[in-house]
Amino acid sequence: MHYALYYWPQIQGRAEFIRLALEEAGADYVDVARTKGGMNKMMQLMKSGAHPPFAPPFLKAGSLLIAQTAMILLYLGGRHGLAPKDEAGRLWVHQCQLTLLDFLVEIHDTHHPIGGGLYYHDQKTEALRRAADFRASRLPKYLGYFENLLAKHPRGGLAGAKLCYADLSLFQTIDGLCYAFPQTMASVKRRYPRLHALHERVAARPRIKAYLASARRIPFNEQGIFRYYPELDG
Amino acid sequence: MHYALYYWPQIQGRAEFIRLALEEAGADYVDVARTKGGMNKMMQLMKSGAHPPFAPPFLKAGSLLIAQTAMILLYLGGRHGLAPKDEAGRLWVHQCQLTLLDFLVEIHDTHHPIGGGLYYHDQKTEALRRAADFRASRLPKYLGYFENLLAKHPRGGLAGAKLCYADLSLFQTIDGLCYAFPQTMASVKRRYPRLHALHERVAARPRIKAYLASARRIPFNEQGIFRYYPELDG
Repeated sequence: MHYALYYWPQIQGRAEFIRLALEEAGADYVDVARTKGGMNKMMQLMKSGAHPPFAPPFLKAGSLLIAQTAMILLYLGGRHGLAPKDEAGRLWVHQCQLTLLDFLVEIHDTHHPIGGGLYYHDQKTEALRRAADFRASRLPKYLGYFENLLAKHPRGGLAGAKLCYADLSLFQTIDGLCYAFPQTMASVKRRYPRLHALHERVAARPRIKAYLASARRIPFNEQGIFRYYPELDG
Repeated sequence: MHYALYYWPQIQGRAEFIRLALEEAGADYVDVARTKGGMNKMMQLMKSGAHPPFAPPFLKAGSLLIAQTAMILLYLGGRHGLAPKDEAGRLWVHQCQLTLLDFLVEIHDTHHPIGGGLYYHDQKTEALRRAADFRASRLPKYLGYFENLLAKHPRGGLAGAKLCYADLSLFQTIDGLCYAFPQTMASVKRRYPRLHALHERVAARPRIKAYLASARRIPFNEQGIFRYYPELDG
C-alpha cells in the first residue's frame, strides 16, 4: 500500500507521530505538502469528498481519506505490526496514544494559552503563567503516569516486549520536551529513568536512527508544537 | 453485557457523551461513583491492573477496563448499532468524535486557560481574553465545519440517515454551548440551522427524552466543562 501523508510542510507537528510509525514500518509514503504543488493538493482535499478532515494531518490510503493523528495510528498500527492483534491490546495502545495527544495539547498551550491564531509575543504574559503551572503540575503528572506504565514491562514498552506505535509517540514526546524544556527535563531526569531509557532505545532502532539523521526529519523549531522559549523553561 | 461507568459524580463532563450512547442503546449500566462507596472503587481502579487509566471516565466491560471517551464510544458504537459496520464508516464516526473532543478541550479552556487545578476566579483575566478569541475564531470554525458535514445528509446525521454516537455527542456539544454561551449562540443561531435541527431531533428521541427528564441526567453547573459565566459570553 502506498500512503500519502498531508501536513503543514515547515513543522514536525502532529504528523511526526505518523511519520515515525511509517518510517519504523518501512512503509512507502510521500509527505505531499513538502513536494512541489503539494500545499494546493492538501487544501483541495480539505474541501472535498464525503469525509473532509477538520485539519491536517490526514492520510490517503487507497480509497480511504482519514484524519486525526490517533486514528491514523490505530489504522496503521494494525496493518504494520505496530500494535497487538488482540482487542484488549489494540485498545490499550490506542488509549495510550490518546493520552499522549491530550498531553501534547497541554504542551502546545504553554506557549499559546489564549489562541492558536495569535502570535506568541501577544500572549507571552499568559504563557509564563501557564508554563509555570505546566512545569509544576501537569508535566510531573503525565511523566509519572507513563514512567509507571513502563515499570510494568522492564526493558519493554507500553504494550510489553514488542514495540508499538505509542512507544514511538512517547519517544517523540520526550524528545520534544527535552528540546522545549531542557533545564526542567534535566532537573527531573533521575525521576524518569524508564522514559529516558525508552527514548534511547527507540532512537537507536535502525530505521528510526536513519530517519532522524535524514532530511525527512524536520528540525524542531519555533513554529511547531515543541518550542524553546527559555523564559517558559523556568 | 453489563457495563460499569466510572466518572466524577457531580458533573456531566466527558462521561456525558458515554451516558448518552448507553441510554440511546438501552444498555444495562451503573454510574459507579454516584453509588454508595463508588468513589473509593473508582480511585482503587485507577491504581491497579495492567492498563490503569490516566483519568476518568473509564468503563468496565467484562474483563476489559477501557478509558478515553472517544475510545469507549468506538467500543460501544460497534456493539450497539451506533456506528456503521464498514471500515470507512466506522473510522469516519470515530474521526468526528475525536474532532468534537478537540472542540471540547477548547470550550473547557475558555474558563481555565492557565490551569485545570486553579480556580476560575484566579484566571478570570486570562479567561476573558481566551473566551473572546474562542467566540470570534474557534467557535465559528468548529460550528461551520459540523454544519457543513450535516449539509451532506439532509435530515440525517454525521454518518447519514442512521443515528451514530457522534450525533449524540454533537447534540451534547450544542446543548452545552447553549448553556454556557446563551447570548452568543442565540446571535448566530440562523447560521447553523442543521446543527439546531439535529439538536432538536436527538432531544426528541424517546430514550434520550426520558433520560434528559430523569435524575440520571446531572444538570449543567459551574463545576463542569460547560459553565455559564456571563462575562465570558461577550
